[in-house]
Amino acid sequence: MEKIARIDMGAQGGPRVTFEPVGEYAGLGGRATTSIMIAKEVNPLAHALGAENKLVIAPGMLSGSAGAMTGRLSVGCKSPLTGTIKESNAGGQAAQVLARIGYAAIVLEGKPEGDDLYKIIVSAEGIKVEVDNSLKLMDNYPLVEKLRAQYGDKVAYMTIGSAGERMLYAASIACTDPELRPTRHCGRGGVGAVMGSKKVKAIILDDAGMKMRPPKYPDKFRDANRKFVEGLRKHPVTGEGLPAYGTNVLTNVINEAGGYPTRNFRSGTFEGAAKLSGEAQAELEIKRGGTATHGCHRGCVIQCSGIYNDKNGNYLTKQPEYETVWAHGGHCGIDDLDVVAELDFLDDNIGLDTIDMGVAIGVAMDAGIIKFGDGEGAIRLMKEEVAKGTPLGRLLGCGAEITGKVLGVEKVPVVKGQALPAYDPRPIQGIGVTYATTTMGADHTAGYAIATNILKSGGDVDPLKVEGQVELSRNLQIATAAIDSTGMCLFIAFAILDQPETFQAFLDMLNAFYGTELTGDSVVELGKKVLSAERDFNARAGFTKYHDRLPRFFYTDPIAPHNQVFSVSDEEMDQLYNW
Amino acid sequence: MEKIARIDMGAQGGPRVTFEPVGEYAGLGGRATTSIMIAKEVNPLAHALGAENKLVIAPGMLSGSAGAMTGRLSVGCKSPLTGTIKESNAGGQAAQVLARIGYAAIVLEGKPEGDDLYKIIVSAEGIKVEVDNSLKLMDNYPLVEKLRAQYGDKVAYMTIGSAGERMLYAASIACTDPELRPTRHCGRGGVGAVMGSKKVKAIILDDAGMKMRPPKYPDKFRDANRKFVEGLRKHPVTGEGLPAYGTNVLTNVINEAGGYPTRNFRSGTFEGAAKLSGEAQAELEIKRGGTATHGCHRGCVIQCSGIYNDKNGNYLTKQPEYETVWAHGGHCGIDDLDVVAELDFLDDNIGLDTIDMGVAIGVAMDAGIIKFGDGEGAIRLMKEEVAKGTPLGRLLGCGAEITGKVLGVEKVPVVKGQALPAYDPRPIQGIGVTYATTTMGADHTAGYAIATNILKSGGDVDPLKVEGQVELSRNLQIATAAIDSTGMCLFIAFAILDQPETFQAFLDMLNAFYGTELTGDSVVELGKKVLSAERDFNARAGFTKYHDRLPRFFYTDPIAPHNQVFSVSDEEMDQLYNW
Repeated sequence: MEKIARIDMGAQGGPRVTFEPVGEYAGLGGRATTSIMIAKEVNPLAHALGAENKLVIAPGMLSGSAGAMTGRLSVGCKSPLTGTIKESNAGGQAAQVLARIGYAAIVLEGKPEGDDLYKIIVSAEGIKVEVDNSLKLMDNYPLVEKLRAQYGDKVAYMTIGSAGERMLYAASIACTDPELRPTRHCGRGGVGAVMGSKKVKAIILDDAGMKMRPPKYPDKFRDANRKFVEGLRKHPVTGEGLPAYGTNVLTNVINEAGGYPTRNFRSGTFEGAAKLSGEAQAELEIKRGGTATHGCHRGCVIQCSGIYNDKNGNYLTKQPEYETVWAHGGHCGIDDLDVVAELDFLDDNIGLDTIDMGVAIGVAMDAGIIKFGDGEGAIRLMKEEVAKGTPLGRLLGCGAEITGKVLGVEKVPVVKGQALPAYDPRPIQGIGVTYATTTMGADHTAGYAIATNILKSGGDVDPLKVEGQVELSRNLQIATAAIDSTGMCLFIAFAILDQPETFQAFLDMLNAFYGTELTGDSVVELGKKVLSAERDFNARAGFTKYHDRLPRFFYTDPIAPHNQVFSVSDEEMDQLYNW
Repeated sequence: MEKIARIDMGAQGGPRVTFEPVGEYAGLGGRATTSIMIAKEVNPLAHALGAENKLVIAPGMLSGSAGAMTGRLSVGCKSPLTGTIKESNAGGQAAQVLARIGYAAIVLEGKPEGDDLYKIIVSAEGIKVEVDNSLKLMDNYPLVEKLRAQYGDKVAYMTIGSAGERMLYAASIACTDPELRPTRHCGRGGVGAVMGSKKVKAIILDDAGMKMRPPKYPDKFRDANRKFVEGLRKHPVTGEGLPAYGTNVLTNVINEAGGYPTRNFRSGTFEGAAKLSGEAQAELEIKRGGTATHGCHRGCVIQCSGIYNDKNGNYLTKQPEYETVWAHGGHCGIDDLDVVAELDFLDDNIGLDTIDMGVAIGVAMDAGIIKFGDGEGAIRLMKEEVAKGTPLGRLLGCGAEITGKVLGVEKVPVVKGQALPAYDPRPIQGIGVTYATTTMGADHTAGYAIATNILKSGGDVDPLKVEGQVELSRNLQIATAAIDSTGMCLFIAFAILDQPETFQAFLDMLNAFYGTELTGDSVVELGKKVLSAERDFNARAGFTKYHDRLPRFFYTDPIAPHNQVFSVSDEEMDQLYNW
């Protein structure tokens, strides 16, 4: 990771690749790299789909090493969905491969004239940018199949489906998993639309001839990694719950807590939750010859994913995540896992964020386009409208906020244009603070207060009360910004929050790799540095404390069963960034 | 105008009317009343279509008097289109009638549950709110016909078409003209959607038994009014150009200046301009038995409107305004006045802002939905999509910004979500300052720099240069905020800017009416007071200096024939409100 490549897609005479040393970004990675670079180089008032925006693709600090859980890839840009800075990260193989080829970042700049579509091949030999109009409007699964015929199975693919080409604001960038399926997505914020605006359909990452990135102190690194893995295996969340049931273990948990937003946030419990639960899902997956325990990238020891086969035992999609099952399930009043799985497949194939798509469909149900509970209707909307780019399909594919505006729905669960995920902020106040204040628009991963509010990891803060929520969210947001820079999966947080020895092992891994002497304070400093860069960008894009608020209905409409509204005061929320 | 009526549409048990003395709003009117009340009473973070928003309807200070030009009605709210405070004013008879009944303001508050649709009857006997579901989804022309059968011709009607009921963000509120046609619209910012959100379909204003509002000093008022009218009649713009050709006299003028935005702001001149011009329009109107000189309300001495008949000599629409002819004409590459007139009729009938609708259709042309120049296609979009409330129709009816987002168009001419009117800010830099900085979102009427940049009224500031534009726009915005409060038509500005004796007559009218001793400075203070209230609301809604900018392409893409970009610096623009 000693160099940065810039690809000016709008250069005179065709795309031009230049290389530069990693320079000021040395020792950074992931979200630190993308956010600091975007904040420095992109005009915050630029059109997100214009030539002035950039798409920064960066592996994490430890990506490409032999360290466990280091497979997250960060993508950063100004978001067309939120208008804020955006970092969206995904698993899959891309981060490991890109890091091994030696890039701290690939930066897509400019915007080509004309209608040509491009693919980019990154390998030890350099970077090639080629026109390939045969890929036009292909969706991710057939697209990757076609590319595999040419580039084989020993590479990683980053692709956009038709949604990205159409520049829909919920468009994702797909990264292939170890089986070369386009199932791991940089989902949020429309990063796929930015890639589409630059007419880049696919990035082929080929690390043939390249080696694992070597730590500065290999023995220390190996030892720290072993302790780190031990820590993950012994923690009940990462050692038991996630491997057995995946993230969907949360359906029953959140429903029982009364925080499962049902039928567009009308209730906090869903009568069909058990049918959608991780327990039911795992049973079904195993029964049909899939698996309930599967890693999204090599080096994962949590294995929170799985394989979801259809009724005939044929592969349908990867195990849908909790937030996906919620967005396409309970949020829409749908209680059929097969419907949810097909929608998950369609999202992955067309290249869309499952959260914003599911929430948009629920909002469209609220507007009467189809009825709550109409699973076949939801599938039809995806296949006949979104996949075909009809006006209604484009509307839905631009996410919940615009869908709500155009269809005349008042109750639209978004912050800064991005759909709220699967946790109601009224009975779980901590996550509401994160939704409202994160630099990213509503995003549970930005400061996962569910851990402490509900799962009692990293302490215990009563989800129904106001006290302690701002501090909790602040600390989690800082820690997350740091973890998102390491290339490590956020799920390590449970173990490093609860087990001091695992946190130490995490630090030791970083120090052994880089020869540094980072402490817990260093991690906090890194997190603050990243958040400050993001916050600075957003301020220059016109965002203020008045944007750090939930939609009004969370303050005015109580929700059953707790019959609470969101009660953290504006004044308290405005303290989040006072550190 | 000694009282204010509040109608709580969301009251338990049905709408409830309460009355209060005019109180702190005494001596104010129009925009001063609406903006100061909205800024004081509405939560800037409220959902614009929710129960927390209010719709304030206020006649001007001199409305209902015998003074000339005093027929403007102001409507204020938080705008669903822009998210800012909004004042939208229209001619027609409503202001005069409402003022004579004695109301300084009618305030619609709350939001009813259920699907019932209401009409409100305001008369000397009080205010009645009645359910009338027979009006559902009626458009303005047939709606007013139906209401006339019940309420007759001696009243004024304020109505919303299907667009307002559907809460489309470009929905207007129509006010009837002296012939009881729904041709005068509070067009901008989606005020019709706010009325629709409160389920109010029609307001019937009946001043039977009421008298002209008496001035405190009748003789002085009569004398001042006579001098004021003389001044309007002798000024070349208000005495010659506007009466003869209407506002469309500008087509040739702006096209010759290279500031006529053509085919979605791709060029500053349109080869079809002559065919759309006011001169051609007036000739056609007269030939077909219409008229090129007609007032929108009794008491108008400028008579800038007209009657546009179809090929068979039957009434088609009122004379389309310059901005309408541009939005549906040159902006879309359409050079056929009959097409433009039909689109104008459709806008009036469905109840839509002609500027945001025309610009949205042009943006949709840019996206390839139909081709530039396809007049029949534009009519079809209005009749088959917008009028029927299809997803595409709702999209277009939500205006240019959302249309551009959903259809993937980068070049979308909006500020704060509202479409730019018919003057390109690159060759006419002064109007760009107004577009960017007004509290209303892009709005030419907020500070009509065209007057001084092009028409050389109120001085002479070179439109191609940066110098003097901020000061010009500031002074015009202040003056406009004051004029918009008097109930007078903005077109009086030409005469009062150029003729000191006419400005004095204007002051004398106010002073004779109210027994005040207002000076030029008082008018400036009133304007500043109104702007400050608006700006304060917007700041609390999250608007910053970063929102006081034009879309990026005006800074980066020069336009022929002057091949200039917009060059007023951010620092200069940020001085606009430093007074």
